[in-house]
Amino acid sequence: MMIIMKAEATEAEIQAVVDRIESVGAKAHPSRGAEVCVIGAIGDREHVARLDLEAHAGVDSVVPILKPYKLASWQLAHERSTLQFAGRKVGGDHFTMIAGPCTVETRDQVLTTARIVRDAGGAFYRGGAYKPRTSPYAFQGLGQEGLRLLAEAKAETGLPIVTELMDARDLEPVLEVADVIQVGARNMQNYPLLAEIGRSNRPTLIKRGLTATLEELLMAAEYVLKEGNENVMLCERGIRTFETAYRFTLDLMAVPVLKELTHLPIIVDPSHAAGRRDLVGPLSLAAAAVGADGIIVEIHPEPDEAICDGPQALRADEFAAYAERVEQAAALAGKVVSAPA
Amino acid sequence: MMIIMKAEATEAEIQAVVDRIESVGAKAHPSRGAEVCVIGAIGDREHVARLDLEAHAGVDSVVPILKPYKLASWQLAHERSTLQFAGRKVGGDHFTMIAGPCTVETRDQVLTTARIVRDAGGAFYRGGAYKPRTSPYAFQGLGQEGLRLLAEAKAETGLPIVTELMDARDLEPVLEVADVIQVGARNMQNYPLLAEIGRSNRPTLIKRGLTATLEELLMAAEYVLKEGNENVMLCERGIRTFETAYRFTLDLMAVPVLKELTHLPIIVDPSHAAGRRDLVGPLSLAAAAVGADGIIVEIHPEPDEAICDGPQALRADEFAAYAERVEQAAALAGKVVSAPA
Amino acid sequence: MMIIMKAEATEAEIQAVVDRIESVGAKAHPSRGAEVCVIGAIGDREHVARLDLEAHAGVDSVVPILKPYKLASWQLAHERSTLQFAGRKVGGDHFTMIAGPCTVETRDQVLTTARIVRDAGGAFYRGGAYKPRTSPYAFQGLGQEGLRLLAEAKAETGLPIVTELMDARDLEPVLEVADVIQVGARNMQNYPLLAEIGRSNRPTLIKRGLTATLEELLMAAEYVLKEGNENVMLCERGIRTFETAYRFTLDLMAVPVLKELTHLPIIVDPSHAAGRRDLVGPLSLAAAAVGADGIIVEIHPEPDEAICDGPQALRADEFAAYAERVEQAAALAGKVVSAPA
Amino acid sequence: MMIIMKAEATEAEIQAVVDRIESVGAKAHPSRGAEVCVIGAIGDREHVARLDLEAHAGVDSVVPILKPYKLASWQLAHERSTLQFAGRKVGGDHFTMIAGPCTVETRDQVLTTARIVRDAGGAFYRGGAYKPRTSPYAFQGLGQEGLRLLAEAKAETGLPIVTELMDARDLEPVLEVADVIQVGARNMQNYPLLAEIGRSNRPTLIKRGLTATLEELLMAAEYVLKEGNENVMLCERGIRTFETAYRFTLDLMAVPVLKELTHLPIIVDPSHAAGRRDLVGPLSLAAAAVGADGIIVEIHPEPDEAICDGPQALRADEFAAYAERVEQAAALAGKVVSAPA
Repeated sequence: MMIIMKAEATEAEIQAVVDRIESVGAKAHPSRGAEVCVIGAIGDREHVARLDLEAHAGVDSVVPILKPYKLASWQLAHERSTLQFAGRKVGGDHFTMIAGPCTVETRDQVLTTARIVRDAGGAFYRGGAYKPRTSPYAFQGLGQEGLRLLAEAKAETGLPIVTELMDARDLEPVLEVADVIQVGARNMQNYPLLAEIGRSNRPTLIKRGLTATLEELLMAAEYVLKEGNENVMLCERGIRTFETAYRFTLDLMAVPVLKELTHLPIIVDPSHAAGRRDLVGPLSLAAAAVGADGIIVEIHPEPDEAICDGPQALRADEFAAYAERVEQAAALAGKVVSAPA
Repeated sequence: MMIIMKAEATEAEIQAVVDRIESVGAKAHPSRGAEVCVIGAIGDREHVARLDLEAHAGVDSVVPILKPYKLASWQLAHERSTLQFAGRKVGGDHFTMIAGPCTVETRDQVLTTARIVRDAGGAFYRGGAYKPRTSPYAFQGLGQEGLRLLAEAKAETGLPIVTELMDARDLEPVLEVADVIQVGARNMQNYPLLAEIGRSNRPTLIKRGLTATLEELLMAAEYVLKEGNENVMLCERGIRTFETAYRFTLDLMAVPVLKELTHLPIIVDPSHAAGRRDLVGPLSLAAAAVGADGIIVEIHPEPDEAICDGPQALRADEFAAYAERVEQAAALAGKVVSAPA
Repeated sequence: MMIIMKAEATEAEIQAVVDRIESVGAKAHPSRGAEVCVIGAIGDREHVARLDLEAHAGVDSVVPILKPYKLASWQLAHERSTLQFAGRKVGGDHFTMIAGPCTVETRDQVLTTARIVRDAGGAFYRGGAYKPRTSPYAFQGLGQEGLRLLAEAKAETGLPIVTELMDARDLEPVLEVADVIQVGARNMQNYPLLAEIGRSNRPTLIKRGLTATLEELLMAAEYVLKEGNENVMLCERGIRTFETAYRFTLDLMAVPVLKELTHLPIIVDPSHAAGRRDLVGPLSLAAAAVGADGIIVEIHPEPDEAICDGPQALRADEFAAYAERVEQAAALAGKVVSAPA
Repeated sequence: MMIIMKAEATEAEIQAVVDRIESVGAKAHPSRGAEVCVIGAIGDREHVARLDLEAHAGVDSVVPILKPYKLASWQLAHERSTLQFAGRKVGGDHFTMIAGPCTVETRDQVLTTARIVRDAGGAFYRGGAYKPRTSPYAFQGLGQEGLRLLAEAKAETGLPIVTELMDARDLEPVLEVADVIQVGARNMQNYPLLAEIGRSNRPTLIKRGLTATLEELLMAAEYVLKEGNENVMLCERGIRTFETAYRFTLDLMAVPVLKELTHLPIIVDPSHAAGRRDLVGPLSLAAAAVGADGIIVEIHPEPDEAICDGPQALRADEFAAYAERVEQAAALAGKVVSAPA
């Protein structure tokens, strides 16, 4: 950590900062320039982080040198991780297609869509049984009945299941069917939930919060990793900006930057960012071309009849053609499609 | 709801939208202008909201007419609510000072600070036993031991307690001491937690998420109100913007706008927005002058030794003078200081 | 324009709005729902826009129905425009590669880079003679001497030139060499400059302001189009968000959305958004895959020696391989590379 | 400047950075920690700034130590400046009220409003003759005829005039009437315009761009100061955020933070931020209470008939009462109202 002192800081103020650093067992290295003094603090990361020196007299700013995440950092692996679970490989050179409806609605809808995903070579089937809804008056998902339908789709198609967990008290039933537990954007900083998923040791896909920095996303992953759960996927799904012409702004720059910061796979969700079907195709091509490790996309047999988020769902009967084009874009970025084992 | 059709929409597309609206039992009123057709949809709010017409062929945009919140809306009360609980009045003409340390650390710290808050005429004592921390390696709060210390402070000073609940599984012990349950910014859209607090019927203070719109904040309140819990306070604590010179941007414009949209009291937290002690004074004056119903502020007997967020804590021995100035600003906005019963 | 009245608006307030609308010669159509009244205002676009009804008693909000831009709107052309100038076609099915150094520095640098762009099949050569710099102490460009070097590059390679105009007083010398006048992001709302370029009738490329909405960008184009200048290209170059891990957030979602709103070609600048060379490749692939009509990219023979923005410049000797990959991505989006006439 | 190397940076990469720093005559001080190496670069500010080391192999990030502005910095003066011009004092302990219509419309409107401002003790009269409008079809101001009316108001009331300059080519006529030249938010980074105003030596008020950081605002001021013009006022007028319930988000936190960074006076414009008359009162109280050096506010004799921005204009006949309340809030922040000489 570097502490940059104000130009007008006195010797006594500099010494007070040095003393404070050394009081927690770290070492302080002041270096006096012509205009300002900069103090390096070296020692145990957590001790130093706790110093909270920003408000000390004479301090201009505090610059962290080390990243606050460890297990998620690229330096840990020195290469991009290839996760293996449920007979699939995710990350590394692999490109993973995850598809299914936003919300589990009916047996027919779930089974029809799952067969389409399987036939088009999709790697995972997604569907929500618990739905975080902005309005308490909106449909909140089928809950355990929805989980049962997902289990049936898995039994029939062999596709591993991705489904969201919103409440740690629902962990047990979710574990019975989920091969991957999804953490929604609104829960990205729900730390008790993240720790519980970490302890469950079930693979997880963490969606970036609407306004989360990449560092905060990596810290969310760290909560899971710290419990010994290594199978963490990150998911960019659009951030909030001033633009009102679309629901969220898909931040594709996050993909190559995350690939430099972390070894974890990075999946892109074009459906929630866009909120409109016609944007999903172009954004998916772009996500694949920018180097994403996979796509999670919403499809529906009859989007106009969907209970939730119909306008953003691709038509299921167009999914195979869509998937083929996206995989061509992934190939341009050096990826191979992750074929089921 | 108004559906604005594209200029090039065909008659068949207009008719399809009309049919879709009427298929859920609502009424459609198309009105054809020289350049575009606008269709009004009138009917049960939830039915219409579920129409998801944005992706229908020929639709340019969909404009909601009714607010999605009901119990939180100003129209419900037609005046600003004065909440009464724990011997206090909050909202209406009252100005409420809530103060205490960020985190409960030691018995001495808690009791010392509580006495200072009481002596300066503060209305509530705040302190965190469960702390949401970005890093899994950071101090996570004293938990139940912290709650015990808060109970002791309450017994000694008579001050009602505001403390955060992060995990619905901790509700029971929190209910034993909390007069007001705080919902942190990162949990503003943790809907199971909000509903549980609603059912508990304990007063709550909901902090605005870092990037939550006012409408989303009011929908979070609606989750609590819907369960029959009427004692909901909203809290502005800074939003995330592009500016890097400070931690968050305190959005004081939210205060008068919320007062128009909702009857619920609006509290301002200048400490977390600023992250720096020297800004807390000016921002508190501004918050009171803009018409806030109260302030929630962090104080510490020895900020430089605080475990958490020390740099933003006011020095406890300066609290009485601070409170007096803030109350003068509140008086300018037409408020009277809420004296304990 | 629709005026949504508050639920508690009185008949007299509704009538006052109706009267105000009719006072400017427009027609008012109030429609009273069970909960609120909505008033449609129909008439000459500018008259109605000038009504400024937001602050009238009883008004909740005002929703524009018509887009404020006309000449830039998709409806004007009912197909995407293919611009033709300087022996090039831009827009429609064409993909246009524009490349060159950020800043004109030396004769050798300009000529070397121009030859590389020509040999790799680039369509235009870009280079800045006037540079908008945040700091008044930074290098501000070679000015007219820089324009002279660009003219030399054009004479030798036959490449048409894209160069920035910052000050209307420099229009004349810029017109002597520029085939396309670039308007920088910071000047996107410099209306006198835009109108002057409109009157000059020289093709222009307008960069989106750091925080400009798509509507504002289209209104900037409208300033040029209104003067009779039809050759306007729009350029997405990154917007400002809360993320600090990169300089700007490249908003690729703007590309398909703009293609729906306007007939004008949309170019993407990956260099300024990223600020780092290693991100330029992935972002360029993504921009081409999302359907951009072209790329404007910075290259430099020796980026480490560049006077300005060296870190984001591609190495000139890697440009041909880069261009080939980007064009493959453009082909995926259905584009053909715009070959010089 | 500190260069933070990546954990995996090699000795050769460290040495290359050291060599690059020393190649421009600066000194490099590498300090190797257990995990990373940090290199301090000390030397002439502009030389070092030009190094552009972010893209060098092995570099993680570059942290500037010195502020890029000099003449605007607090360190220059070591106290807050009190500017004196046109018989007024601005800054320091003084609170300055600037008021008038958004746009000059008619002789009657200008003279009526000017008398009201004078009678209520306002310090300056504001009014726009050149108006930056998003739409090329909107009223663009009366231009020179508007300047003439402002001159008449000045002659009658003795109030010094604040008016906007949009185009350097209009400098001469503006200088004939303006005591303070206003630079609008959209022109904050119009560097040729700023430099021209600097050379004119006329006092100026620079509005913060919609998305400008405080550092960029101070760099805009630096462009004026560098030409020897010391009378620069900064103006916060709302920034762009994700919130759609209001036009802009007034960033009052900028006021105390700017007071720490710069000696220049800071004025707040509540009218443009809010866009709605009913918010102007509360925001003005807050701006005064947070410590602003003044307010610039829009008033109109008949806001409903205003050509431009009527909804945000205070009614002129309520101005005196408004000004009195705002000055009470300013007094709370330790200010005295700046009485004309």
